[in-house]
Amino acid sequence: MAVVRRLPRYYRYLDDLYHAGVLRISSKLLAERMDLTASQIRQDFNNFGGFGQQGYGYNVEHLRREIGSILGLNNNHTAILIGVGNIGHALLANFTFERHGFTLTAAFDTKPELIGTQIRGLTILDVAGLDDFCKDKTPDIAVLTVPRSVAPSMASRLALLGVRGLWNFANIDLDTQLHGEMARQKVTVENVHFSDSLMTLCYRIGAKKD
Amino acid sequence: MAVVRRLPRYYRYLDDLYHAGVLRISSKLLAERMDLTASQIRQDFNNFGGFGQQGYGYNVEHLRREIGSILGLNNNHTAILIGVGNIGHALLANFTFERHGFTLTAAFDTKPELIGTQIRGLTILDVAGLDDFCKDKTPDIAVLTVPRSVAPSMASRLALLGVRGLWNFANIDLDTQLHGEMARQKVTVENVHFSDSLMTLCYRIGAKKD
Repeated sequence: MAVVRRLPRYYRYLDDLYHAGVLRISSKLLAERMDLTASQIRQDFNNFGGFGQQGYGYNVEHLRREIGSILGLNNNHTAILIGVGNIGHALLANFTFERHGFTLTAAFDTKPELIGTQIRGLTILDVAGLDDFCKDKTPDIAVLTVPRSVAPSMASRLALLGVRGLWNFANIDLDTQLHGEMARQKVTVENVHFSDSLMTLCYRIGAKKD
Repeated sequence: MAVVRRLPRYYRYLDDLYHAGVLRISSKLLAERMDLTASQIRQDFNNFGGFGQQGYGYNVEHLRREIGSILGLNNNHTAILIGVGNIGHALLANFTFERHGFTLTAAFDTKPELIGTQIRGLTILDVAGLDDFCKDKTPDIAVLTVPRSVAPSMASRLALLGVRGLWNFANIDLDTQLHGEMARQKVTVENVHFSDSLMTLCYRIGAKKD
């Protein structure tokens, strides 16, 4: 799982390099950028069959494509978003789902003043229509940007509707609360915890001061 | 660094347990909750002097306090927030900085319609007054929730103003772009990349399907 956790970072760096027109990169330079050792990188890539040629570095376009393929970014997954508050709105307005493996097919909210409005071409739908939508379109995952208080009940509802993954921004640990239910329904939960990176920063500025 | 990356997660789980009134927890149960092995947990804690007594499990309150202290959560760090768009607004309205080591002392924006308004008791200030504020109050870190296009110049400005850390939501890799400058000014950058967890979810739902 630790290697898998590094794959998105590899992909992100390679994607940046690719879009900057870089053709090849050495494991040494990639390691420096990623704050890893070159041997760690070679070991990681060997886990997946190895992508490099000794002494020639890595072909950026090839490596990016291979890692993207391992991550499943080309599998035409679909996503819906539930809850167009501040975070939901920010994701709809700025986040490029397509570049990270998903087509966003719908967004839902309960507020009458939001329903029917558009953000980047996507019309906000009434959450009352969520069940019919899911039965009809079977989205792969749901982005959970609802208030904390309704997150568990919404997660259960989405699980029963056949959603296979939850990208959870609700700042509540659904794995702990709904562990049995999510496991039974085979729903994968990926929690986004802002606090972890802030506490890491807290540690790092303290360590630097000493 | 890998252990350090796990500390915030340990703290988060222990904080939840603490607030739920749990007094003791075994390394086995903590491991299950955190998707680690019990021996991994014992090894991590031994790195920091060990907190447990064989066979008795861990005292939740004590362990939470010790890990919080290693992270430096009680060091009275101060933070300012730059950019009250959707993400900035969400953090101001919902994120409990105090529980994660920081007192938020000011928020800044450029928009006249925002300046002077309040969110959770904090008045939005004009970014024109940023330099004076920083010279006077010397905040430890800045939360960077500005648009991507202005993030590098704002990061440079904050570095020159003596800020020691950046919690960067601007979806741009400041480490790469401003590596030399941030290193010279001894600024620690912690990037928040939403895409990493979405790509991990993409991998996990694909792996489960096979």
